[in-house]
Amino acid sequence: MSAQSKVVLSDNDMPRQWYNIQADLPHPLPPPVGKDGKPIGPDALAPVFPMNLIEQEVSTQRWIDIPEEVIEKLLLWRPSPLYRAHQFEKALGTPAKIYYKNEGVSPAGSHKPNTAIPQAYYNREFGIQRLTTETGAGQWGCALAMACKLFGLICKVYMVRISFDQKPFRKMMMNVWGAECVASPSNLTQAGRAILAKTPDTPGSLAIAISEAIEDAVTSKNTRYSLGSVLNHVLMHQTVVGLEAQKQMKMMGEYPDVVIGCVGGGSNFAGISFPFVCDKIHGKNIKIVAVEPTACPTLTRGPFVYDSGDVAMMTPLLPMYSLGHGFVPQPIHAGGLRYHGMAPLVSHVLREGLIEAVAIPQLECYKSAVLWAHTEGFIPAPETSHAIAAAAREAKQAQEEGKERIILLNWSGHGLMDLTGYEAYMNGKLSDYQLPDNDLQASLKALEGLPVPPKL
Amino acid sequence: MSAQSKVVLSDNDMPRQWYNIQADLPHPLPPPVGKDGKPIGPDALAPVFPMNLIEQEVSTQRWIDIPEEVIEKLLLWRPSPLYRAHQFEKALGTPAKIYYKNEGVSPAGSHKPNTAIPQAYYNREFGIQRLTTETGAGQWGCALAMACKLFGLICKVYMVRISFDQKPFRKMMMNVWGAECVASPSNLTQAGRAILAKTPDTPGSLAIAISEAIEDAVTSKNTRYSLGSVLNHVLMHQTVVGLEAQKQMKMMGEYPDVVIGCVGGGSNFAGISFPFVCDKIHGKNIKIVAVEPTACPTLTRGPFVYDSGDVAMMTPLLPMYSLGHGFVPQPIHAGGLRYHGMAPLVSHVLREGLIEAVAIPQLECYKSAVLWAHTEGFIPAPETSHAIAAAAREAKQAQEEGKERIILLNWSGHGLMDLTGYEAYMNGKLSDYQLPDNDLQASLKALEGLPVPPKL
Repeated sequence: MSAQSKVVLSDNDMPRQWYNIQADLPHPLPPPVGKDGKPIGPDALAPVFPMNLIEQEVSTQRWIDIPEEVIEKLLLWRPSPLYRAHQFEKALGTPAKIYYKNEGVSPAGSHKPNTAIPQAYYNREFGIQRLTTETGAGQWGCALAMACKLFGLICKVYMVRISFDQKPFRKMMMNVWGAECVASPSNLTQAGRAILAKTPDTPGSLAIAISEAIEDAVTSKNTRYSLGSVLNHVLMHQTVVGLEAQKQMKMMGEYPDVVIGCVGGGSNFAGISFPFVCDKIHGKNIKIVAVEPTACPTLTRGPFVYDSGDVAMMTPLLPMYSLGHGFVPQPIHAGGLRYHGMAPLVSHVLREGLIEAVAIPQLECYKSAVLWAHTEGFIPAPETSHAIAAAAREAKQAQEEGKERIILLNWSGHGLMDLTGYEAYMNGKLSDYQLPDNDLQASLKALEGLPVPPKL
Repeated sequence: MSAQSKVVLSDNDMPRQWYNIQADLPHPLPPPVGKDGKPIGPDALAPVFPMNLIEQEVSTQRWIDIPEEVIEKLLLWRPSPLYRAHQFEKALGTPAKIYYKNEGVSPAGSHKPNTAIPQAYYNREFGIQRLTTETGAGQWGCALAMACKLFGLICKVYMVRISFDQKPFRKMMMNVWGAECVASPSNLTQAGRAILAKTPDTPGSLAIAISEAIEDAVTSKNTRYSLGSVLNHVLMHQTVVGLEAQKQMKMMGEYPDVVIGCVGGGSNFAGISFPFVCDKIHGKNIKIVAVEPTACPTLTRGPFVYDSGDVAMMTPLLPMYSLGHGFVPQPIHAGGLRYHGMAPLVSHVLREGLIEAVAIPQLECYKSAVLWAHTEGFIPAPETSHAIAAAAREAKQAQEEGKERIILLNWSGHGLMDLTGYEAYMNGKLSDYQLPDNDLQASLKALEGLPVPPKL
């Protein structure tokens, strides 16, 4: 009989509290500030977010209870299974053991509903009837569409036009869940109209879509805006992933030597890793790796600065690693990893030396993803392939050192809605991209004159 | 705390044997015959299938061991979870409890890999290096592509041209798993070339694709043909579904009053139901319902006859309910349910009075599927929506009678690759279709002169 290949949990094993890493940080997280460098208080965010979520955003309480109604909805698919990737290990010929947390089992196919559900709940509790958001590749738009339907909210999604045109199936998913999805820039907002007047055939961008979604939220009745990553409360909602994984690894009789997640805005990485970062803060010897694309090397090549979340600088300035708010990444297929900045909490724990970051080129990621599909069956999302490639590197090193190594990765989503990237890869139409230093320096000029975050 | 919402099983709970209903049939299944009415022996099938699978096809042994290597691959995603559809029940306002077995968690997104894996294994064991098959909507082609890759076989899929053109993502999935997928009719076979010569712009059909795949198999070196439904051994491979469900229902402290599955070729329905049919044969009081579309009412309006599996009559004659081998169903979106015949074993247990059949129109199915997505989150495959609609009817009846009723349905797959059907439904572009009696009678003329199966 082969060794055990998975650990499944029952309803009762799902966490009843989220873990808030702000309670355990060696140094406190610098606050968001205005262009004058003065901290932005909770009240300033009230037109954009409901106050109960703003309270979570600034909370330093270690454990925060998950409301019963949120638990009920998360139980539609959670707890998610933890698998051991026996067949992938065998193909690599490694002595390492590779475990993966399968977040692709959610109805939307990724980890995103873990925060969409509580965000919809807290908005409804606060009396909000309608949510707006932006989406790039569409994972987040789908998750929020589903969550809004489950809680009876109206949902409006501004989808970057080029994705809207190229990925019609994501829009259809949102429609099935009752959401309205429009291409951005649209003629529904001042921000959108201004862009269209200047560049009628723009492909759009996440930054433009954010501007439209925020404008819609603050100018419409009973409406707020919802964000799928970056913010503290969003990352905290994802910690159910890591908390479950800790329990499952324990049931396997293992503790990981390495924990790996891909990073775009930071929520999927934080979800698997923050409970382990907590262990590390309290003395555990563990390597925690955030994996980004070489085409968008925020953590590995960006400076730690105060920068805006969007190109139009509508958001407060956040303390984070950034490539500059005007940075436009190459069109790699891992759309969820194409963001100029990084969640302040992920940036902070990197600065604290609690995690490491690595950038991996696209072709190596696809190669690992195809090997995964050929051995484990499941087709990974292009974002997820970055975590798989990093795990393969760790496994190879273990092999070279002749050591067993326990690797845990967050398998953040399946790639069934992203098959064009695989097609391009298999037809030899993809290439790697290394960001030229000149381009990076030019992009970082946008940071000139902005406030500078305090040293640790 | 809400009532338990799921039962998950560990590796050790996966069945180690398939259940073969042929051991328990009140009357034996009539054999396949030639046009002369004489039984077709195993040897006649040897050019098409490997002998180890032919042995399974004719076996009357009740339990057949699942080989260790097959178990290893099935464990990549099995056992599948059993959920209770609390939120769907609540929306219906029914006192019924609705449980569903989620076969959408497989890498291919449906129940099809349950037989693709053992078929690839037995062919490899028999020394076969290459498999051919046909696929309509693409579920089966994807499952076999994955299974072949896992066992190191070459896989060639003939995909009905209209689906090949309209569903490029299914082809990409097959490519990721290393299979070659060509549009049928192709110029690679005599059968294909003959059709193309007559009708160069034909949209193709499953019957043509079957002819091409069989011709390729019998004329190529070390190659056999693989079928995704209809045959006895295929249905038997699917019984892991029902055997797991029995265990899971027991862990819930329940036994179903009603078991429901949709039927096209019959494998998904047989998978969930045959272990319960066994209980019924041994005295259990249980209702077992096969659900088909009104556009392809094989069980509800077809006669029980000897008919061919394909339009060109290349296959032996099978004892089954059939609409006539020349029947071309309307292009409804549940592509997996568009087959003129029905698995002999499913046909046989209907004739024995052990199961019931019902036909449901397309719009009612989509309506139920959308309600499901709005309450349970998961978007069902169009095929699966037929089982959901039947469960909703049962639940409504329970409500009218004021009775609790325990309903179990096979949630055969997710609909993420079938979103165009939802889009058409939500835009009001779908309609119902009732097969006119004249058309049915015309189609049944193809049966004239064929042998007639024995009475029970």
